[in-house]
Amino acid sequence: MTVLPNIDPSPCRKKIKKTLRKTCSVKTLKRRLPILSWLPKYKPGYFPQDFIAGITVGLTAIPQGIAYAVVAGLPPEHGLYASLTSGVIYVFFGSCYNVTVGPTAILAAMTAKYVSNYSADFAILVAFISGLVILGMGILQLGFLVEFISMPVISGFTTAAALQIAASQLKSFVGLSGPSGNYFAESIENLIVNFKTMKLYEPILGLATIIMLMLLKKLGEGCKRTDGFIKQVRWFISLSRNAVVIVVGMTVAFILKITLEHEPLILIGDIGGGLPEFSWPPFSTVVGNQTYSFGDMMNVMGTGFVVLPLVAIIESVAIAKAFAGGATVDATQEMIALGLCNIIGSFGQSMPITGSFTRTALNHMSGVVTPLGGVTKVILLIIALTSLTSTFYYIPKASLSGLIISAMFSMIDYKIVQKLWRNSKKELAILIVTGMVCLLYGLEYGIIAGIVIEAALLLHRVSRPKLSANFVKSQKGDLLIVPLTEDISYCAAEHIRRTVIKESQELSDTVIVIDGTNLKNMDFTAASNLVLVVKELDKKSLRVLMLNFNLILKNLCVDIDRSIEEKFVYGTNVLVMPEVFLKAV
Amino acid sequence: MTVLPNIDPSPCRKKIKKTLRKTCSVKTLKRRLPILSWLPKYKPGYFPQDFIAGITVGLTAIPQGIAYAVVAGLPPEHGLYASLTSGVIYVFFGSCYNVTVGPTAILAAMTAKYVSNYSADFAILVAFISGLVILGMGILQLGFLVEFISMPVISGFTTAAALQIAASQLKSFVGLSGPSGNYFAESIENLIVNFKTMKLYEPILGLATIIMLMLLKKLGEGCKRTDGFIKQVRWFISLSRNAVVIVVGMTVAFILKITLEHEPLILIGDIGGGLPEFSWPPFSTVVGNQTYSFGDMMNVMGTGFVVLPLVAIIESVAIAKAFAGGATVDATQEMIALGLCNIIGSFGQSMPITGSFTRTALNHMSGVVTPLGGVTKVILLIIALTSLTSTFYYIPKASLSGLIISAMFSMIDYKIVQKLWRNSKKELAILIVTGMVCLLYGLEYGIIAGIVIEAALLLHRVSRPKLSANFVKSQKGDLLIVPLTEDISYCAAEHIRRTVIKESQELSDTVIVIDGTNLKNMDFTAASNLVLVVKELDKKSLRVLMLNFNLILKNLCVDIDRSIEEKFVYGTNVLVMPEVFLKAV
Repeated sequence: MTVLPNIDPSPCRKKIKKTLRKTCSVKTLKRRLPILSWLPKYKPGYFPQDFIAGITVGLTAIPQGIAYAVVAGLPPEHGLYASLTSGVIYVFFGSCYNVTVGPTAILAAMTAKYVSNYSADFAILVAFISGLVILGMGILQLGFLVEFISMPVISGFTTAAALQIAASQLKSFVGLSGPSGNYFAESIENLIVNFKTMKLYEPILGLATIIMLMLLKKLGEGCKRTDGFIKQVRWFISLSRNAVVIVVGMTVAFILKITLEHEPLILIGDIGGGLPEFSWPPFSTVVGNQTYSFGDMMNVMGTGFVVLPLVAIIESVAIAKAFAGGATVDATQEMIALGLCNIIGSFGQSMPITGSFTRTALNHMSGVVTPLGGVTKVILLIIALTSLTSTFYYIPKASLSGLIISAMFSMIDYKIVQKLWRNSKKELAILIVTGMVCLLYGLEYGIIAGIVIEAALLLHRVSRPKLSANFVKSQKGDLLIVPLTEDISYCAAEHIRRTVIKESQELSDTVIVIDGTNLKNMDFTAASNLVLVVKELDKKSLRVLMLNFNLILKNLCVDIDRSIEEKFVYGTNVLVMPEVFLKAV
Repeated sequence: MTVLPNIDPSPCRKKIKKTLRKTCSVKTLKRRLPILSWLPKYKPGYFPQDFIAGITVGLTAIPQGIAYAVVAGLPPEHGLYASLTSGVIYVFFGSCYNVTVGPTAILAAMTAKYVSNYSADFAILVAFISGLVILGMGILQLGFLVEFISMPVISGFTTAAALQIAASQLKSFVGLSGPSGNYFAESIENLIVNFKTMKLYEPILGLATIIMLMLLKKLGEGCKRTDGFIKQVRWFISLSRNAVVIVVGMTVAFILKITLEHEPLILIGDIGGGLPEFSWPPFSTVVGNQTYSFGDMMNVMGTGFVVLPLVAIIESVAIAKAFAGGATVDATQEMIALGLCNIIGSFGQSMPITGSFTRTALNHMSGVVTPLGGVTKVILLIIALTSLTSTFYYIPKASLSGLIISAMFSMIDYKIVQKLWRNSKKELAILIVTGMVCLLYGLEYGIIAGIVIEAALLLHRVSRPKLSANFVKSQKGDLLIVPLTEDISYCAAEHIRRTVIKESQELSDTVIVIDGTNLKNMDFTAASNLVLVVKELDKKSLRVLMLNFNLILKNLCVDIDRSIEEKFVYGTNVLVMPEVFLKAV
């Protein structure tokens, strides 16, 4: 019997095997389906906390779901569907116990454009496509792309979004007729044009809603879940204030209808009751007389195809981090969960969803322990959709707009503006430009403008490394020392060439030392230009030395031009003892 | 009489005045119209040299002008017009005495797409628009943008352009019928499909042209302008080899016609004689039955709108630098000259032009002294256009394609591939990707792909600064030292946060020192994340110190969060004497 030689499998095969083994391990399964980790460890003692948190979140999710569907221009039930399906999916796939997902003001505002100009089908397709993109980015580990959106850009974008949403709600707030407008500028224009159609009851109720929300917030201050009964009640009412003001609004509408024998307020009206029906997302739609194929719909989405998923990821990951309390956030898993919530949600006519800051904060304050809190929220939503839609008929639009406008106050970040004013006017300018483009051309163009401007400025800075040449006089001769920075890339090559040539313009009898002590990286273009500089200075009969270049970079230069090898010198005493240095070389 | 107080004009007014004074000075005028500098200093002794250089350049400009018009798919006279008008303009505005402008192979290849798919009018409009963009970039000092095109990208692009041009000429080279193809892949496909239609005389003449060019080049080796008569003649013939082979080709064609009583070779045919008529560039055109408005034409240009001017600037500035012999090149002035050459040229039906490497090298070798050499060239071109067009009728297309193909050999840079293979495989990959996209999708997409990939990789590198944490044990306690790099921008913020958190994951009883000694710049996003890290580590009861941050950066951090002020410490002995350091803080 011949013994087969023990051949090592190729490294490539090994790697594939390792990846496969890693992908199929129990640990990975638990990471990708976090419910397998926390559910078996669930203790009965957690339940009351999860239950109460679920109630407070649910009592906010219902009015916010309706409100953000209204912001998007959709029938209100789409907001409730979105909260419902995403709530169920996140229980299984979510890795952060206190994060709550659902429709948010910003995503709703970004969807509104498609709905008002085309049809509601676009909102559902946007959810589906965004979900696919987010899932894909999660699987391909492309989450790092959001790191290229700086805080000034996010802040300018968020503030503009808040202003745009608030402006779009002013119409319902004062009971005007006419369209609400796609952009901030358009909304303000419509407001001015239709100002004469302002009603009486609407602004009163809207303002009363805002004031009530402020008072109810005050009511809960200093109260905790663990306090005595009275304080507990105050705490609970305060946290459920969104539901409270809507109930008050509905009651007012109902009483007015009975006493005046007609309804003076504009109501939200019929809401499609029952649970969402599951079917394929709309891959084609009809707007007016025109049929839009899938390709046409994607064309309409345009830049939204990339921007909406990015914004969803920023919101969700930022929230997860903010409430992680120092723990590391598995951004990949959050993106997978978010992607699946949107994809599966779109099969149940859901609008785009992401992490909600308000509801996550509420969940956290209510002392949630596991994602099971989400189940209570889901049950509340099911009750609302199956039994309460006829009651929701009486929700006055003015109450909703009051609710939305007051939520927008907290989205505007004044502090960052002050801090940037004091520390970095350039970054403040980026914030303002981002915000202005958002307000004047639309949210997605604003954020793209911000990202591109910031990246261009960064590239420009990388292309202009600061070189401070030192001129050292010594008895053995003069030295011009040009210390290079850590990293020189192709775009800085010409700048360095220009600087060295300029610094040595009127010199003679001087040794020019290009100091590569700190230099760690240099690409081919940069190295070629450096070689060119040396040769040009040689032509002018100036002596050039390349000091302390590491071996890889020296080899690169020598490979570009053999004749440059003799220029490389090593030593440390050039600045301290120029004479000794000059003698040594 | 009251004396008016001597009020300082506002700094803004001062600045405007200064700029105005600077703009209107004689020095600026001379810089912007360089002929005012060199013409008054012209010495009669310069004339013979300028004259001879003009002759050699002109003898190449004529065949190359015709050849590159053919590459662009234009009637041959457009190439001659382009050489003529740009030659005149450059005498006035050019700042580099030896640079020669005119049609080039690459610009011709980039124009070909518009001409073959639409009409010749597009080539003239492209020249006009490119001229405007180049002039605008010159005035706005945006020339630095070409610094973002690295050598691997340029090399991949140039090589692909050479292959594409050579492939498009293979058809004429072997006398095939059928179209020559928009892209490399298409040209090769057409060649294979139509291979059976190959003729006899064409490939022989084409090959003979290439061999003649090689031999004529050899003939001039070792000969200089200043040598004896025989060597001088050899030198002159060698430099005029492009004209020589075309004359040989014409003679062959003429003799064949007379001896065979029909013409077996495909000839260039009728050339529109006379000087160009000056009129507005075509702002609308008719292709087939369809009228293209200016807007439609701009739409057709698409990315060419930016890419063509960029390529023109790269070619021109690179050539100016290569032949400046160490002198600084006024890139702004070169761009202004180039822009004007294209704009004014387009009024005389000229195709797009830029600096020509071949003819500039020829000019240099011929010992040109001032831009006046260009005048001789222009006179030769005028003679050609007014008296020789009937002779040019006999230029065989095979001779032209042989001329073009042999010019392409020198455009392919093998050496850079070897050097990148040895030193930087990543940059070689960029070269290959650029080249492949050029060959498969078109030249402009290839160069854009290269620029974008390179910029994305650069941004990615900037977002991942190398942080090497040092763990130092000492009797007073352990230290984890994380030295920050010189520059931390928003996109690196998250990476640094992650690194610090990861390094300190399983530590306890350790002082974490975030070492900002080398740190020079940090933006708001990076500072905010750093503050966040410190607060997160605080929550884990790890002691954190921020070492040697400069005052501006310290103030920024403290402004973000007051409580962080106590974390800042200063000292230099942390690595050398950790005990002393720990005692001191």
